[in-house]
Amino acid sequence: MEKILITGHKIPDTDSICSAISYTELKHAQGVENAVACRLGKVSRETQYALDHFGAETPLFLDNVNPDADGTKKKVILVDHNERFQTPDGIENAKILEVIDHHKFNLITDEPLKIVADTVGCTSTIVYRLYKQAGITPSKRAAGLMMSAIISDTLLFKSPTCTPEDVEAVKELSKLAGEENYEEYGMKLLIEGTTLSDKTPDEIITMDMKEFDMNGKTVAIAQVNTVDTKGTLSMQADLEKAMNDRINAKGYDLFVLIITDIVKAGSYVLATGKSPELVEKGFKVTLENNTAWLEGVVSRKKQVVPFMLEASK
Amino acid sequence: MEKILITGHKIPDTDSICSAISYTELKHAQGVENAVACRLGKVSRETQYALDHFGAETPLFLDNVNPDADGTKKKVILVDHNERFQTPDGIENAKILEVIDHHKFNLITDEPLKIVADTVGCTSTIVYRLYKQAGITPSKRAAGLMMSAIISDTLLFKSPTCTPEDVEAVKELSKLAGEENYEEYGMKLLIEGTTLSDKTPDEIITMDMKEFDMNGKTVAIAQVNTVDTKGTLSMQADLEKAMNDRINAKGYDLFVLIITDIVKAGSYVLATGKSPELVEKGFKVTLENNTAWLEGVVSRKKQVVPFMLEASK
Repeated sequence: MEKILITGHKIPDTDSICSAISYTELKHAQGVENAVACRLGKVSRETQYALDHFGAETPLFLDNVNPDADGTKKKVILVDHNERFQTPDGIENAKILEVIDHHKFNLITDEPLKIVADTVGCTSTIVYRLYKQAGITPSKRAAGLMMSAIISDTLLFKSPTCTPEDVEAVKELSKLAGEENYEEYGMKLLIEGTTLSDKTPDEIITMDMKEFDMNGKTVAIAQVNTVDTKGTLSMQADLEKAMNDRINAKGYDLFVLIITDIVKAGSYVLATGKSPELVEKGFKVTLENNTAWLEGVVSRKKQVVPFMLEASK
Repeated sequence: MEKILITGHKIPDTDSICSAISYTELKHAQGVENAVACRLGKVSRETQYALDHFGAETPLFLDNVNPDADGTKKKVILVDHNERFQTPDGIENAKILEVIDHHKFNLITDEPLKIVADTVGCTSTIVYRLYKQAGITPSKRAAGLMMSAIISDTLLFKSPTCTPEDVEAVKELSKLAGEENYEEYGMKLLIEGTTLSDKTPDEIITMDMKEFDMNGKTVAIAQVNTVDTKGTLSMQADLEKAMNDRINAKGYDLFVLIITDIVKAGSYVLATGKSPELVEKGFKVTLENNTAWLEGVVSRKKQVVPFMLEASK
């Protein structure tokens, strides 16, 4: 039977993986048996912690969504992203059935499709809403995964992207998942996600990296959440080398690394490349030794991308 | 108080006007008192029939959504469209809060937003779904307008874009509107919309015209629904003159007029301009005297645009 591939973005974070699995379970419960949860890259340590904790399997790795040998287009549902840069290779020759997302949009399709997007902190919050609208109770596993995704995306409600619906969803899901002390679980999950000690510089800058087209400039923006920004900055020379290697390989105009202190709720920005003015103009800061402290900035989507986009006009 | 402008597309059809009014009423019922129903052009004869029948006022005419004198961005909700060509002038400097739509997508935003899109026959079907999800019963007036929009967009369920949800919505809305004989009302509405006798050629080709970017070619596609295709085709020379005048004024590569016979459920296509191959390749027909009969084609969105887009690649 022809499959429906449900996938999050490249370099998947916990939301991309957990929303793909949970939405696939919802589809199955609605009788869409050919839905398959997929991923476009390696599962992070944080995500693996959540998968292990709630007994979920790693989604199917998807290399591309090119048509079958007989020309049949793949059917795809995109969760937690919609932009071409972040979708599977070959998407231009696939049929996008649905998009479930909470990011800014850059989507061009040839045909009508189903989209559920909203300005909430996490795609899994929307997936949980869809469960409720369908009158279907998520499994313990799906509830735990959706809860994990929301905690991850909102940094346990500290991110400015967090909405009352995200908080309420975690409270309800924690009961369904049998994990009522969600704060304790959430801190463990976030700490697991922020351990950088076992990572190479190239791994650090690509753990959660996304590419953006900013009015003709190609900008890579990576983000790491940590409780030890000083330890991370002590690797600055090695990080910059890894960033410049990526710039040379991919032709980026700018590589930005956002090192977010989840306790202080602010970020160091580290920028290399030929367009640092997008950072300086965007945040009204002066980079010293390629870095600056951005007070209160913790959300790439809400507090980084829009300001750099504006600066690029 | 700052307004939230809710508007359908340029050259508004019944769905654009009725969805704007009905969704504004829903917002009011949800406590969003600053929502204002708007329109971007003249109300059609068909739409006026529905407005009069259900005692609704014509929405506010909107010339543009440029920022206020102090630079404050206008807040806009787009219904029944999402593409730049079809939105109010100045949209690039406005804040799009939401999109409610059932068309293909070509949407680029700087920030996340709420989107509810689906592959149903009419935007008002989605608006009615949102009423139900919110647990709010539409007013008699809003119910009548949403019912009218669905009948108009689906040609009383004859269009291939029509889904079971559209049919069910009309049945439920007809009761709420006190218009249980929706078939009789619907035929009156469609006949009102298809009277071309009082129209000039330029009015006929712009009644329901949309512009599309097809891989670098700018194509205008107009559609008229009629019960008298022969009478319309007897004006061919005058229609072609009006189409060529528009081509010269706007620089279109192609102007296509779809003359849909709502009884026979097919369309004559009339095409002028320098790229007629988009029609010939798209529908696998040979134009004779600039026209061809397209058996079974009644939906611009589903049966015209995708095939011409494919032919333009």
